[in-house]
Amino acid sequence: MAIRYPNGKTYVNSDKVLPKKQLNNRLTSFSKRGMSLEEDLNASNQYYLAKGNAVIHKKPTPIQIVKVDYPKRSAAVIKEAYFRHASTTDYNGVYRGYYLDFEAKETKNKLSFPLKNFHEHQITHMKQCIQQQAICFVIMRFTTSERLFLLEAEQLITYWNNQEHDGRKSIPLKELEKKGYELYYELSPRIPYLKVVDNLIAELQK
Amino acid sequence: MAIRYPNGKTYVNSDKVLPKKQLNNRLTSFSKRGMSLEEDLNASNQYYLAKGNAVIHKKPTPIQIVKVDYPKRSAAVIKEAYFRHASTTDYNGVYRGYYLDFEAKETKNKLSFPLKNFHEHQITHMKQCIQQQAICFVIMRFTTSERLFLLEAEQLITYWNNQEHDGRKSIPLKELEKKGYELYYELSPRIPYLKVVDNLIAELQK
Repeated sequence: MAIRYPNGKTYVNSDKVLPKKQLNNRLTSFSKRGMSLEEDLNASNQYYLAKGNAVIHKKPTPIQIVKVDYPKRSAAVIKEAYFRHASTTDYNGVYRGYYLDFEAKETKNKLSFPLKNFHEHQITHMKQCIQQQAICFVIMRFTTSERLFLLEAEQLITYWNNQEHDGRKSIPLKELEKKGYELYYELSPRIPYLKVVDNLIAELQK
Repeated sequence: MAIRYPNGKTYVNSDKVLPKKQLNNRLTSFSKRGMSLEEDLNASNQYYLAKGNAVIHKKPTPIQIVKVDYPKRSAAVIKEAYFRHASTTDYNGVYRGYYLDFEAKETKNKLSFPLKNFHEHQITHMKQCIQQQAICFVIMRFTTSERLFLLEAEQLITYWNNQEHDGRKSIPLKELEKKGYELYYELSPRIPYLKVVDNLIAELQK
């Protein structure tokens, strides 16, 4: 079933359709390359894969296909299709025998991370994964300061539940600094999030 | 990068685009419902999810989007796009803390399962997953007899490697009966493959 956007809001496909953001040329710092969080994570995952460290992939965006042409002697062309909402998070895979599952989100806010960046079905999926002993988290980026945090799904779910009982609709940066793990850009991999996952695994094994 | 089909062969998208196969009405046997392997697996995964047994999803087919229209007050419409080859297998998820990864394939052959049903990149992905201690396998269906087998990826890879050294280009049914695990249709879940996965996990823990 296709889920069309109720308010007619356009879906922004991250990298293919829209003209690329102008590359930020201040290459003096790794954090100033003007890459999107998704691009950085994909590059990091490719690095981890090439090194034999982990097998993590971003899932394709689900598409509801309505019409396809099959021209002779050339590839099938999709002529009408719609974006659908995923029923899961965007990234999953395997690392050291553990199932990893995560979502990545960015905000332009400076002092807090709005919970509206997440969707009910993603929270549901995270709860289901936790029940199966997955290592489940979110990677959040503040685009202005380029600060990155990894927050365990359990924590996110606590904020989500509070919000539903008239709590705050965002996670204050001050709290992320305490409850999350800050990630720092590197050359390869760009976002070395498996370092934090190693900590999470060590906690599990205690 | 879009990978177009080199021989102009049309990609058959399993469930959406083509008219559905006529349902086979002989409902006396669960195995005679005329459902595709993909439909049966999706239903089984939904059952497992609803019961809190496992979180396994089929990945969306990757699409290379070329042109999108954004009509006012309605959903974005994809006007030109192409099917791409996935770089992974179709199914993955988490069960009892284990990462599961598998591919599902059908053949009309009666006495052997052709290896050409699998692709180099899928075999590569399976090898990468095994290296990370994934539980990795294929589910194979003989459409004529409706017999189903689960074969561990390690076994499939052995056949694949032999083929590349002038070995057989298919796996004989007789060998699948010995080296694989036969699966039998049930009402819910239709394909109870987690029973076999329990065996594989028990072997791991020995």
